[in-house]
Amino acid sequence: MQIADRMEGFSPFYVMELLQRAKQLELAGREIIHMEVGEPDFPSPASVIEAGARKIQTGEIKYTAAAGLPELRNKIAEYYQQQYAVNIPAERIFITPGASGAFLLALGVSLNPGEAIIMADPCYPCNHNFVRFFGGHAKLIPVSATTKYHLTADLIKQHWQDKTCGVVIASPSNPTGTVIAEEELKKAIAQVNHYHGCFYSDEIYHGLVYEPPANSALQYSDDVFVINSFSKYFSMTGWRIGWLVVPEKFIDAVERMAQNIFISTPSHSQYAALHAFTEKNLQELERRKELFKDRRDFLYDHLLRLGFVIPVKPEGAFYIYADCSRFTNDSYQFAKDLLEQQGVAVTPGKDFGNNDANCYIRFAYTASIAKIAVAIEKLEQFLTR
Amino acid sequence: MQIADRMEGFSPFYVMELLQRAKQLELAGREIIHMEVGEPDFPSPASVIEAGARKIQTGEIKYTAAAGLPELRNKIAEYYQQQYAVNIPAERIFITPGASGAFLLALGVSLNPGEAIIMADPCYPCNHNFVRFFGGHAKLIPVSATTKYHLTADLIKQHWQDKTCGVVIASPSNPTGTVIAEEELKKAIAQVNHYHGCFYSDEIYHGLVYEPPANSALQYSDDVFVINSFSKYFSMTGWRIGWLVVPEKFIDAVERMAQNIFISTPSHSQYAALHAFTEKNLQELERRKELFKDRRDFLYDHLLRLGFVIPVKPEGAFYIYADCSRFTNDSYQFAKDLLEQQGVAVTPGKDFGNNDANCYIRFAYTASIAKIAVAIEKLEQFLTR
Repeated sequence: MQIADRMEGFSPFYVMELLQRAKQLELAGREIIHMEVGEPDFPSPASVIEAGARKIQTGEIKYTAAAGLPELRNKIAEYYQQQYAVNIPAERIFITPGASGAFLLALGVSLNPGEAIIMADPCYPCNHNFVRFFGGHAKLIPVSATTKYHLTADLIKQHWQDKTCGVVIASPSNPTGTVIAEEELKKAIAQVNHYHGCFYSDEIYHGLVYEPPANSALQYSDDVFVINSFSKYFSMTGWRIGWLVVPEKFIDAVERMAQNIFISTPSHSQYAALHAFTEKNLQELERRKELFKDRRDFLYDHLLRLGFVIPVKPEGAFYIYADCSRFTNDSYQFAKDLLEQQGVAVTPGKDFGNNDANCYIRFAYTASIAKIAVAIEKLEQFLTR
Repeated sequence: MQIADRMEGFSPFYVMELLQRAKQLELAGREIIHMEVGEPDFPSPASVIEAGARKIQTGEIKYTAAAGLPELRNKIAEYYQQQYAVNIPAERIFITPGASGAFLLALGVSLNPGEAIIMADPCYPCNHNFVRFFGGHAKLIPVSATTKYHLTADLIKQHWQDKTCGVVIASPSNPTGTVIAEEELKKAIAQVNHYHGCFYSDEIYHGLVYEPPANSALQYSDDVFVINSFSKYFSMTGWRIGWLVVPEKFIDAVERMAQNIFISTPSHSQYAALHAFTEKNLQELERRKELFKDRRDFLYDHLLRLGFVIPVKPEGAFYIYADCSRFTNDSYQFAKDLLEQQGVAVTPGKDFGNNDANCYIRFAYTASIAKIAVAIEKLEQFLTR
């Protein structure tokens, strides 16, 4: 019995060690403020809860079509019309077990072993692990504040090689919260289309953008994969439901792969998600977005005051990626000490790549302002210890 | 944009075409008897429904640990103790999005591209498509009534080569419903252990075995992967929840892979499944098993009467794999005609491999005896047309 080679490239989540330690401390009676968790602290929307419970009470939680409930695919098509004024045929929309499932399908149908996918460093670590999963090579391109921590058409041009299959752009970015500029997104897609490569647009933080709303890759091309999810904006993490929009050419392949590797997405989650788009619900979600914005402003101001450097003010998601080089050049140790001494849990930069990662910390503002205020106090004590 | 090479090997499900046609006919007002569906016709257990709805109503449907709820892992460990008298540490048990998720993890951590996995033909088609998913080669070994449609130690020996990584045995088998004899299972595992290969035991139809209960691979070795699910015996298909037991050596790799490719299994399903093991529920499931047994007996007798050949009486799952060579040598066309002319949907043998598949039909007795009786009448009319 051997462990498969692909596991070598699978980076662990360093934050997991912190999480385990946090749990130990909590069991021992310490209060921990969690600013490491990438999940909204709000409950799932009332209309979704009600519909989910109602569906379960029927007892008829059966397989659905592999591509998802036709009604839900239609609802998402309508949502694209409303949000981005684009017409996406429902046949191109696949319901998936979270954005994770969407990434599995998108790369599974398009990436061959030995091929490379270009992505920004820093980025969400699962994205490059998915590439390794299929025997591909994740080409991590260091990005900086100059490009708002996003890839550009020029960077893509510079790094595209024979074996390059495509490009992932995640906007708003996890961990930086920055949104790619419309022009840049357009140019990047055009560049990848020019190479006849695959453009994978990770849009799972769409909806959680504070100033002008983010643009979808679908506004500029039909030849893109778009990954999205009910987890973040819709506060439905544990339901494990997301979606994938695919170029027409891939419809049949995605359908076959979904049948085989998932059978179907949880059906109670699908029936519940049908009720995610009510006007009342969307109003509540917009209200929550405003709360996230207030938290961002609060946290941003205080981090700057304490001496962290944040070269681009994040415009979305619920993260601030802060340069802590004034205090340490080992942000992992910094995070461990902060947890141990002050009970504040954050995520070290090294979970997001190699690009100066030891000088960065990701703060998630998935806690109330009251809690964030306490965390700031504790952080201040920690820094002036 | 290219479609990845792995998709070439992904066989479609031929039954899907039948299903689509069945839906058309139903929309046009025809009544269809479904004997093609691999999903129990019973609702999910009352205790599970209640717990699932209660959990949803809290609104707190958040990510869980990637390996699953510790309480649920413990419950499954207890269940192994009760059912098979084996001690499995909960750390070796991973909660997965259905048996599909369990297979993804098991092969993902142990199979390298270019390596082969031996499995029986006929077998469940997803199992070999999973192997292709990882760039492996599914070596399908024709099996017959002589070995109850299962692999044996001798067959494994005969087909094991340098590049062979492991063996899948699914018992009870889908499509044949046959259970591997205890001695044969033991010897097969010993043979694979001897080669230091991986033994993957697909036990998703355990619980649904009518005479002596099936033996788990875990009774004979700790160095096996066991795939199981709440879908079949527990009637929880749409909840998408199963589990994987892994050899100790693989715990860390499976954990890392699960974090990356799933984040977690649907959490409402996990909280619900905690209540699957109550005595009252298990009594109800045993009662359902008896109903399945009655259906098997009824269907078996009538199929034989009509001239189908069933060389081994199936002992579990809810399938009869019947030789229809007296009537046709194109069971796919037979299935299409049967649907069109009589409104009875069944699955053609070619969905399960190449081994004389055109002479076989799979009947699923996931319908009441009353419905099966009507199907038999219609089948009789069809055969004497």
